[in-house]
Amino acid sequence: MVTDQRDAGRRLVFSTIRKAGRIARVDLARETGISPATVTSITAELIREGLIEETGPSQDNDLRRGRPRVDLKVRGAARIVAGMKLSHQTIAVALVDFEGTLVGEACLELDRARFKAAELLPLFRRALEHAVSTAGMTMDALAGIGIGMAGTVDAAHGTVYWSPGLSERNVPLREMLMADLDMPVFIDNDANLVAMAEQYFGHGRGVSDFIVLTIESGVGMGIVVNHEIYRGARGCGAEFGHTKVQLDGALCRCGQRGCLEAYVADYALLREAATTTDFADRATTAQKLQSLVEAAQAGDETAKSIFDRAGRMFAMGLANIVNIFDPELIILSGERMQFDYLYAEDVLDGIRKSIVQIDMAPPEVRIHKWGDLMWAKGAAAYAIEGVAEIALQDIAGNAA
Amino acid sequence: MVTDQRDAGRRLVFSTIRKAGRIARVDLARETGISPATVTSITAELIREGLIEETGPSQDNDLRRGRPRVDLKVRGAARIVAGMKLSHQTIAVALVDFEGTLVGEACLELDRARFKAAELLPLFRRALEHAVSTAGMTMDALAGIGIGMAGTVDAAHGTVYWSPGLSERNVPLREMLMADLDMPVFIDNDANLVAMAEQYFGHGRGVSDFIVLTIESGVGMGIVVNHEIYRGARGCGAEFGHTKVQLDGALCRCGQRGCLEAYVADYALLREAATTTDFADRATTAQKLQSLVEAAQAGDETAKSIFDRAGRMFAMGLANIVNIFDPELIILSGERMQFDYLYAEDVLDGIRKSIVQIDMAPPEVRIHKWGDLMWAKGAAAYAIEGVAEIALQDIAGNAA
Repeated sequence: MVTDQRDAGRRLVFSTIRKAGRIARVDLARETGISPATVTSITAELIREGLIEETGPSQDNDLRRGRPRVDLKVRGAARIVAGMKLSHQTIAVALVDFEGTLVGEACLELDRARFKAAELLPLFRRALEHAVSTAGMTMDALAGIGIGMAGTVDAAHGTVYWSPGLSERNVPLREMLMADLDMPVFIDNDANLVAMAEQYFGHGRGVSDFIVLTIESGVGMGIVVNHEIYRGARGCGAEFGHTKVQLDGALCRCGQRGCLEAYVADYALLREAATTTDFADRATTAQKLQSLVEAAQAGDETAKSIFDRAGRMFAMGLANIVNIFDPELIILSGERMQFDYLYAEDVLDGIRKSIVQIDMAPPEVRIHKWGDLMWAKGAAAYAIEGVAEIALQDIAGNAA
Repeated sequence: MVTDQRDAGRRLVFSTIRKAGRIARVDLARETGISPATVTSITAELIREGLIEETGPSQDNDLRRGRPRVDLKVRGAARIVAGMKLSHQTIAVALVDFEGTLVGEACLELDRARFKAAELLPLFRRALEHAVSTAGMTMDALAGIGIGMAGTVDAAHGTVYWSPGLSERNVPLREMLMADLDMPVFIDNDANLVAMAEQYFGHGRGVSDFIVLTIESGVGMGIVVNHEIYRGARGCGAEFGHTKVQLDGALCRCGQRGCLEAYVADYALLREAATTTDFADRATTAQKLQSLVEAAQAGDETAKSIFDRAGRMFAMGLANIVNIFDPELIILSGERMQFDYLYAEDVLDGIRKSIVQIDMAPPEVRIHKWGDLMWAKGAAAYAIEGVAEIALQDIAGNAA
């Protein structure tokens, strides 16, 4: 019992240091509710094991105190992990140290968008080896790998129930990759990992409840409740893209009708555009979208009406999230060019008008444009969490 | 610091006993992660203060053990509280003891559905005095009052931003009632209190994550995440009834368009029915609804199509909740006759078809019919929570 408490305390102290970046022992005790004596003992143990280290006072330190304050931080050199994101025809890799500092990166272009699981394994390996060798390292340097996949992913079991990147369903991808790469692997829904990246490196730092939305080839959502990713009862988390915005509405890739994704995702915009536009001279989805954006910007009424309806559907779907979750902060995240339309001021205004009106400020909405590399950093943050858990279990095992 | 830990431990031990009903000290230690020695010390203190008591072994006790096991439970006689629910033209009152056992009840019929706050105060008092005297008690016997109100309620501050029962907005109702009744008052959204009743007395007992939905004159939702009512960043909780199911759809009482409530609530059904039916000979909402239900049962195509569309909209809204929250259990709760249509098998089937399909069982849906008295019991459960917190703070104050 007492050992369990010690293990729980160690876990809480480490994750609090990690989320804070830099923190003094006295603040650690206050934030965790653990006694100062126990904090001192636990942090001594973590320093001895090389997981954290002391560092000089931070800039905003109170210099009026008698003696200089010493902060604690995660020891960057303790571990190196890789984060990978499989997106449309691309695998992005980020190598980061234990503090989350980027130490290497790579990007592998793929010749198509859907693969069998057995075909994906060598592609993940190739992207990883490329990143590692570019950074002047070997695969042995890696302590673990985090992977973000679009679709319905059971993170706890490492099962991908469905992903637009996989031609098979119910794939035990984590197990397959661990056997192939011979190291710890952690898999999650990619939008959850963007939420984790925001939590550790971005706008979500220090915010207890927030939501991250992404629009690319699909629509993703990550929910953070009480500083933790919310995954739901079946471990598959929030499926914002497949909430229904129209009874018996447009057909979705998932096979159902009226999903938000079927109105706002890349394929939905291009499906509408194809009714009146010949895209024969544009090879890729990105090129087609680019030409649709340009047509709207040039004043083409059809192109404008496509973005207009998508924007209104997006506002409606997002207002529903606000009415249900009432988050403190909403982060709209992504890199595509439909940004200019779907995340435009009049869309945000539509959201404000559709949420329940009370005499308090509505949730803050922040827009954060970033590319595949930042998604990969989120996957790396997840790998750090998993690798840290292994390290803490080792300490617990040795202490018992 | 150490005192804070003791206070937190005392709070955790008490709420664990309360949620368990009956529990042995050894199980308390296991469930809370608090050491057996500290559990023994805290429970001795709670017994001394009269908040809990020892009780004989429960039926499912393991008799093979050497000595009979002693369970702990909340001491019913410790406090009496009242729960009240303001619904359409009715105030229901439940008097319960500290264990939640019903010790008295009353119902006050009102001559209309909307009041100024100053008009409501004497009505609440009259309902309360009626319940207390019927039970052979006096107002002095009450340790606190819980009240459930439809609408947007900030439970932490006791402010009712909007309620169909109040003609004013932003009413500090809790403060007004405490001044009038001279005892602790706790106010929350009524659907949250139904969720609390399910958690303490109903299907939600022991379930960590579940959702309760109610359809009456409005549509309500209470969300329990990790054994706690989820209230959102602004403290007003989930507004399921005002999620949008149709862009620019039917007008809602809240002034917006396309809200789920504007398709499925009492007033929405009757608004549609009035297009073709003359309700002049039916006085009350209940009578009008009854005649609409009877028409549908008799095969009237218009009446059937009203319930049919409402059912499909309800299925769509509920499937959205499942896609976002992925709860373990959904409890459909209420007492009205639209039950037979809105909670019918084909509606539930519509929900199943609209949620994201994975190779796991969808959340369990349970239907729980109950009346105003059970809503009031939920309000009483909330009062117990508040009164217990005051008692525990007194102990903490005396110990410090």
